[in-house]
Amino acid sequence: MQNSPRKVYFVSNGTAITAETLGISLLAQFPDHQFQMRTIPFVDTLEKAHKVRDEINDGLGEVNHVPIIICTMGDPELMEIINQARAMIIDPFGDILPRLEKVLAAQHLQPGQSHRTANPSVYESRIDAIDYAMIHDDGGKTQNYDEADIILIGVSRSGKTPSCLYLALQFGIKAANYPITEEDMEYEKLPEPLRPFKERLFGLTTDLHRLVNIRQERRPNSRYSSLTQCRYELRAVEEMYQRHKINYINTSAMSVEEISARIIRDNELQRIELP
Amino acid sequence: MQNSPRKVYFVSNGTAITAETLGISLLAQFPDHQFQMRTIPFVDTLEKAHKVRDEINDGLGEVNHVPIIICTMGDPELMEIINQARAMIIDPFGDILPRLEKVLAAQHLQPGQSHRTANPSVYESRIDAIDYAMIHDDGGKTQNYDEADIILIGVSRSGKTPSCLYLALQFGIKAANYPITEEDMEYEKLPEPLRPFKERLFGLTTDLHRLVNIRQERRPNSRYSSLTQCRYELRAVEEMYQRHKINYINTSAMSVEEISARIIRDNELQRIELP
Repeated sequence: MQNSPRKVYFVSNGTAITAETLGISLLAQFPDHQFQMRTIPFVDTLEKAHKVRDEINDGLGEVNHVPIIICTMGDPELMEIINQARAMIIDPFGDILPRLEKVLAAQHLQPGQSHRTANPSVYESRIDAIDYAMIHDDGGKTQNYDEADIILIGVSRSGKTPSCLYLALQFGIKAANYPITEEDMEYEKLPEPLRPFKERLFGLTTDLHRLVNIRQERRPNSRYSSLTQCRYELRAVEEMYQRHKINYINTSAMSVEEISARIIRDNELQRIELP
Repeated sequence: MQNSPRKVYFVSNGTAITAETLGISLLAQFPDHQFQMRTIPFVDTLEKAHKVRDEINDGLGEVNHVPIIICTMGDPELMEIINQARAMIIDPFGDILPRLEKVLAAQHLQPGQSHRTANPSVYESRIDAIDYAMIHDDGGKTQNYDEADIILIGVSRSGKTPSCLYLALQFGIKAANYPITEEDMEYEKLPEPLRPFKERLFGLTTDLHRLVNIRQERRPNSRYSSLTQCRYELRAVEEMYQRHKINYINTSAMSVEEISARIIRDNELQRIELP
């Protein structure tokens, strides 16, 4: 193992989201290593590509090991230049596109050819879902639950809002969320606005100490963030899920991406068409 | 070119976000082809892997060409099973991990070993940024602009809200947004809440017909969605950007991802640490 972190560059002529997503997944397989990652998007001219190559080569003096470049370039001429960097270069497009060309019996896009244009109806569904999530966040409006694809419930700070926003942005899913308050916990019945929509409810819960920590960040040393209060709320809400046979997950060890993917799978939600 | 759409599967023992992101980028290189894509996440047991393999093979009868599987499996034993599907199989982990092992002089994770645990401070920054975006959406609260990393401005429906949410969720960037209204356009000066923060302002604009279409979806045949009104607002807001030397971009042909990546680059914003 090296002492100084290994430099890793995610480079692309576009947003570099693909290079970064793939790169982070790959590096997660080496948890004992330290990486110093940098994303360089929009490297879309020869000049910019030369600059990136030179920057990477100039950075070599500082470290005693070879940097890693994960590069998704739509343009082979730009890739050529990045290939001149003194680095280990991962070029998934270069590896995979020739195989796809063969099986599809087609050439891939040449530089300057235009991509598939974004489907406007997909854009619209995404925007509609975001509008829906914003209006129906935190029990803000409960009148239009018949339009919801899913209604997330849970105690304050169990991950409802980020999950709803991610479901909307990434998948065009209309997700509302409703906070279960102490008052709601005193009754055997479900909170009134939720009762007609039992089939669309999905519960979130979390570990006691995690909840305490997150609430402490917000209102330190309050009743709200106390161990006793958090324990009471989590028990009450889990009992509520069980009593009403509402499916739920514990989000403690999960990222927003994982929570959302689980919600989609467990509820067989229909996401918008892939592009 | 084939007539029926080519079946494509994104398969993973995790969320399948990596397989899907990479796959969509690759397929975008073949804009003349039709694909029928399906994402299958959480294939994390031998039983589930067998089921996926069988499903893919069973689907073969319906089409006259070989399906494509893009599979990111952390576990070689599961990958082995997917490899038995009668399909063209793209396995970027299998291709790349051995090369990374060599350069890092380390073995990658074995099944059952645990991943790097998520950095709680990164999670916190992300959640803080989401809270910030929710509170400071649509000019809702203008008091805490000194905490903003960036303040997006623009006319109604130019893409401010989705961009702010994406910046928060994906990059932990605190982004506020402020709608430029007709009233604001009548003055030479910037709207009052924005004046002390000129350095943090970034403008969005869009094409006239795109704006008309998006507004028509919301309030058909209204003054708000009329050609005259949209033209007036776009001209006025672009003049405002120029008068006050505020950088801006036209978001018409851009996805939320692209808008966000451009905002980060153009403003040299500091995103949260990569995992």
